[in-house]
Amino acid sequence: MPELKPIVFYDFPGKNESLNAWNPNCWKTRYCLNYKGVPYTTTWVEYPDVERILKAAGISPTLIKPDGSPLYTIPAIVDPNTGVALAESFQIAQYLDKTYPDGPTLVPAGTKALQNAFISAFSSNISPILQFSLLGIYEDILSPRSQPYFHETRPGFVLGGLTIEEAYPKGENAKEEWKKLEAGFGNIAKWMNEEEKFVMGDVISFADFAVAGSLQAARKIWDKDDNQKWKDISNWDGGRWLKLLENLEKYANVK
Amino acid sequence: MPELKPIVFYDFPGKNESLNAWNPNCWKTRYCLNYKGVPYTTTWVEYPDVERILKAAGISPTLIKPDGSPLYTIPAIVDPNTGVALAESFQIAQYLDKTYPDGPTLVPAGTKALQNAFISAFSSNISPILQFSLLGIYEDILSPRSQPYFHETRPGFVLGGLTIEEAYPKGENAKEEWKKLEAGFGNIAKWMNEEEKFVMGDVISFADFAVAGSLQAARKIWDKDDNQKWKDISNWDGGRWLKLLENLEKYANVK
Repeated sequence: MPELKPIVFYDFPGKNESLNAWNPNCWKTRYCLNYKGVPYTTTWVEYPDVERILKAAGISPTLIKPDGSPLYTIPAIVDPNTGVALAESFQIAQYLDKTYPDGPTLVPAGTKALQNAFISAFSSNISPILQFSLLGIYEDILSPRSQPYFHETRPGFVLGGLTIEEAYPKGENAKEEWKKLEAGFGNIAKWMNEEEKFVMGDVISFADFAVAGSLQAARKIWDKDDNQKWKDISNWDGGRWLKLLENLEKYANVK
Repeated sequence: MPELKPIVFYDFPGKNESLNAWNPNCWKTRYCLNYKGVPYTTTWVEYPDVERILKAAGISPTLIKPDGSPLYTIPAIVDPNTGVALAESFQIAQYLDKTYPDGPTLVPAGTKALQNAFISAFSSNISPILQFSLLGIYEDILSPRSQPYFHETRPGFVLGGLTIEEAYPKGENAKEEWKKLEAGFGNIAKWMNEEEKFVMGDVISFADFAVAGSLQAARKIWDKDDNQKWKDISNWDGGRWLKLLENLEKYANVK
């Protein structure tokens, strides 16, 4: 599609370039853009700048803050070919399918509600990952410019009032929560056939990008010699999660 | 298929014939059998007889009791045409698709994991319905022969040690839990397009039978003049749940 102007894709940066592309939801959109084969550029936005930049781009908020005011979220895109500006990875996927029907399909016909259900069930099953990952994102990934905002807002946004440090599982609780996460991934593995590469069998769909997005984030945070977490995840369920990343490698380009 | 011998379908009876067909999971299998158009007969099994009858029929248990022993569950089928005997509604649906490929498909190609995810996400979203419905099943539906077994086993099987009466939501908690249920159905409605009849749009699939099975059970328990619950459910989400039952009415025959 040489005549298309590049879509602007908003993602969160890390504190250096090798630490960019750490956010699981943004990964979903990156996979979608790469898989559809539409041209795009990435604009890296630090947390304190999100609201100002998205507002200026004409992107609507997707959530409500604890104080009732609108919350602007990333991933988000602006498509200069259509003038459309929107946030939220599943909305973006459906927009891309509708606007660029010639590419491969992210949400195959008839599966919209099923894909939605998958996203919901996948999130519930891997919910313990949140408490484990926030500390690594805060300490190891984010730049000094994003850290204070992230630290101040997580308690109200996602941690029921706890700080990132308080919410991080410790001791016996950490073992139990990590087992719950393993069991959650195990449930998802059981939904699929062992020999099938993707959620829909041979066909790639948004659901795979939801799973792979979380895996990409986990790898970015925990793939270090002194950390057992990524080693664990890559061995769970016969190594199928690591294989999924490999099978989607050609759509994982960060640009 | 005039040459086929009828499949034996095991379901729970009520205390009289008009109160048969009250169990949401058995409804899934009834819908599947009717939709596939395979001949079957229903064998109504009281709770205390389930283990003995299923064992004798060669059906394997699907769950584990709190004491670690195997739990035999209904719905279950025996297919005299193949000798296959099995339990659990989604397993049965996949068996029917594989064995009777000429009929309509319950789990369309490529959607097995997505349908599994839907069942899981649907169950979580409507989970408050359990506490509300067990008391009505116990008091109004079951025969004196099943009542004691049901009352004794629910605390250990599904209620975390509480009795049916203790678990039944009361006062402010009842209002909150009923609102949670409404919100749960609302989430499912939001996954679909408003104008679409079925989870997969125009195509009926197992996911619809999972939803409709719970609705059939709710209607059986609560569709009475002095009970507001079924009236509430049939009005939620623009009346789409009542419409779903109407759209599946031709597959709802109890025989």
